[in-house]
Amino acid sequence: MPETTQERLRLGADVILRLNNGVPQTTLKNMREEFPFLADATQAYALGDVWTRPGLDDRTRQLAAVAAFAAMGERGLMKIHAGYALNVGVTEDELKEIVYMITVPAGFPKAILASQTMSELFEERRNAIGGSGQ
Amino acid sequence: MPETTQERLRLGADVILRLNNGVPQTTLKNMREEFPFLADATQAYALGDVWTRPGLDDRTRQLAAVAAFAAMGERGLMKIHAGYALNVGVTEDELKEIVYMITVPAGFPKAILASQTMSELFEERRNAIGGSGQ
Amino acid sequence: MPETTQERLRLGADVILRLNNGVPQTTLKNMREEFPFLADATQAYALGDVWTRPGLDDRTRQLAAVAAFAAMGERGLMKIHAGYALNVGVTEDELKEIVYMITVPAGFPKAILASQTMSELFEERRNAIGGSGQ
Amino acid sequence: MPETTQERLRLGADVILRLNNGVPQTTLKNMREEFPFLADATQAYALGDVWTRPGLDDRTRQLAAVAAFAAMGERGLMKIHAGYALNVGVTEDELKEIVYMITVPAGFPKAILASQTMSELFEERRNAIGGSGQ
Amino acid sequence: MPETTQERLRLGADVILRLNNGVPQTTLKNMREEFPFLADATQAYALGDVWTRPGLDDRTRQLAAVAAFAAMGERGLMKIHAGYALNVGVTEDELKEIVYMITVPAGFPKAILASQTMSELFEERRNAIGGSGQ
Amino acid sequence: MPETTQERLRLGADVILRLNNGVPQTTLKNMREEFPFLADATQAYALGDVWTRPGLDDRTRQLAAVAAFAAMGERGLMKIHAGYALNVGVTEDELKEIVYMITVPAGFPKAILASQTMSELFEERRNAIGGSGQ
Repeated sequence: MPETTQERLRLGADVILRLNNGVPQTTLKNMREEFPFLADATQAYALGDVWTRPGLDDRTRQLAAVAAFAAMGERGLMKIHAGYALNVGVTEDELKEIVYMITVPAGFPKAILASQTMSELFEERRNAIGGSGQ
Repeated sequence: MPETTQERLRLGADVILRLNNGVPQTTLKNMREEFPFLADATQAYALGDVWTRPGLDDRTRQLAAVAAFAAMGERGLMKIHAGYALNVGVTEDELKEIVYMITVPAGFPKAILASQTMSELFEERRNAIGGSGQ
Repeated sequence: MPETTQERLRLGADVILRLNNGVPQTTLKNMREEFPFLADATQAYALGDVWTRPGLDDRTRQLAAVAAFAAMGERGLMKIHAGYALNVGVTEDELKEIVYMITVPAGFPKAILASQTMSELFEERRNAIGGSGQ
Repeated sequence: MPETTQERLRLGADVILRLNNGVPQTTLKNMREEFPFLADATQAYALGDVWTRPGLDDRTRQLAAVAAFAAMGERGLMKIHAGYALNVGVTEDELKEIVYMITVPAGFPKAILASQTMSELFEERRNAIGGSGQ
Repeated sequence: MPETTQERLRLGADVILRLNNGVPQTTLKNMREEFPFLADATQAYALGDVWTRPGLDDRTRQLAAVAAFAAMGERGLMKIHAGYALNVGVTEDELKEIVYMITVPAGFPKAILASQTMSELFEERRNAIGGSGQ
Repeated sequence: MPETTQERLRLGADVILRLNNGVPQTTLKNMREEFPFLADATQAYALGDVWTRPGLDDRTRQLAAVAAFAAMGERGLMKIHAGYALNVGVTEDELKEIVYMITVPAGFPKAILASQTMSELFEERRNAIGGSGQ
């Protein structure tokens, strides 16, 4: 782990910018106002300590994280991390394979919910691209 | 999906041999005696249909599956699939990174249980190698 | 299991028509566009293989499935299968007994969520009947 | 609900004797020593209030309860209630169908754990019959 | 436990009035129409039997209950019980500490969901106070 | 949060000594050998950052944590934290009240498992006291 909390927070902020196409994370910003420690813990621990570890490349970590969120039925964070996955070069088809795989450890309802959440994500990204003139 | 159930079962058997170093899966064999449909479903659907899909390589699928099992606290299947992961070239260090990552989506108890199960697995494999004459 | 994938898909389609009053399943149709393997797996495995097995009658399987979905907090699929249950002759009162029973294995929040979802379902079905000419 | 707590406790005791072949429940007796309210709540509420309700017959309620326990991975109570199910005339084959069905809402690990727990139960009951001289 | 069901229901009604600032619980009233046993069980067992036990003071029981609901991702009941907690003198800051603590047993998604639900609750209470003329 | 990782680790070590009667935590020591980051994260984040926060006293935090672990069925960590609770002055009777309360959010199996784990803990502590000559 980095030696100072300041450095850990900075690394977490860098991870978000790298995964989120250079844009700060809205969920995190909203949390900071009323739940500052949770925002700091997410940024310094989850992103700064865990997500910067060198042992897994971004693609593999995002795919494994999406699998974990989907298996637990955590739609909100699954959507955020599936978006990060696409931003670092994972394809829609690879995310679909994670959804298919999830039927085995977690059953069909979790996979179906994940498929619906991903369809929303894919649609939003298409609209965002369309809206910016392409 | 393959066209016949026979073919799906054959593909599932091939997957096990590939992931399990050429050895049939004991859990599956025990299940077959009293729960034959569950054994067939595991072999034909989970392994034959899902695990043979081309969209993810073996390493990535095993890491994502281990993440899902660990996040759900499914120690038995996590151990089996972590063993498969090692058999297809995933390193112990990569599995440890999955455990570390699991603290974020699923909390510390699930990560601690996963670390204990993996320590057992690593130990068993070292003993098995030692026992076979090294 | 049936010998061919084609036959399994056909059996799954038959199950839906039988449980859903002769009407195709909307959720499944929407899924097929972007997640074709999940739609096929639901139809061929979940419905074609599992739901056509002769060992349980439709009523008992639907009540047990509703209990499983309710205990897990899977509102979407619980609602679909509670609707199927009503279509094959289960009464609203029997579904309510499942909800009451769920307090024991899964606690009060899961039972309360299930009661709210079932109230929505009962209401929708009353409106649908009213809307079709009464 | 019955009017007095005394009556509810008596009804709960009757349910146990009916489901458990006339033998008091060991788990409940052990609990009573250190956790008396939990033993009373299980007997008066879970068994006396819920399990005596007339809207479901014993067989259906046991099958639905086994499905709920299995879907949640609650091996201990699933085993107890699967035993009760056999005692009121459910067959081993019907319990196996519940296990097969559980792959759909809850995935393969929960179904495999349930199959292993049921195999233990079936074996124990065969040994108990053998041990009593048959 | 109290000797009669009538007394247990009365105690449960008293608990609600004490925790809910003298106002009956809407969720419970809505439930009673179609799911009367669930409403009675919630009132007589959950509130009348459990919530009136003398071994924990109101503040501690509410904080522990909020922790349990948050760890399980039960947003609806967590919000109701967090509101009760505020009504019996727990501060917003103490509720925030429960949310922070939840990252450890249950991971970041459950804590983030709890923080969002609590922000809604805090906002609603501020608006309600504002709306009544302050 | 403290400014340096060194300080956070030191605070976490202090928390363990305070909660565990001056004795280092065995689980944590075993983890450190093969999963050093998980041991550091538990010590620096879970214990150093979260468990040292001033907003809740030790008793309340331990009771809320035990409730969360019990509701999730996390027996190992529930036992450790129930032991810490006893060490900081919580009584066995207060822990039993948490178990009784857990039937409401999480159902009877989770409460029964928690009661069994606590009975083990109470017994071990009595034996330990007896074994040290009293």
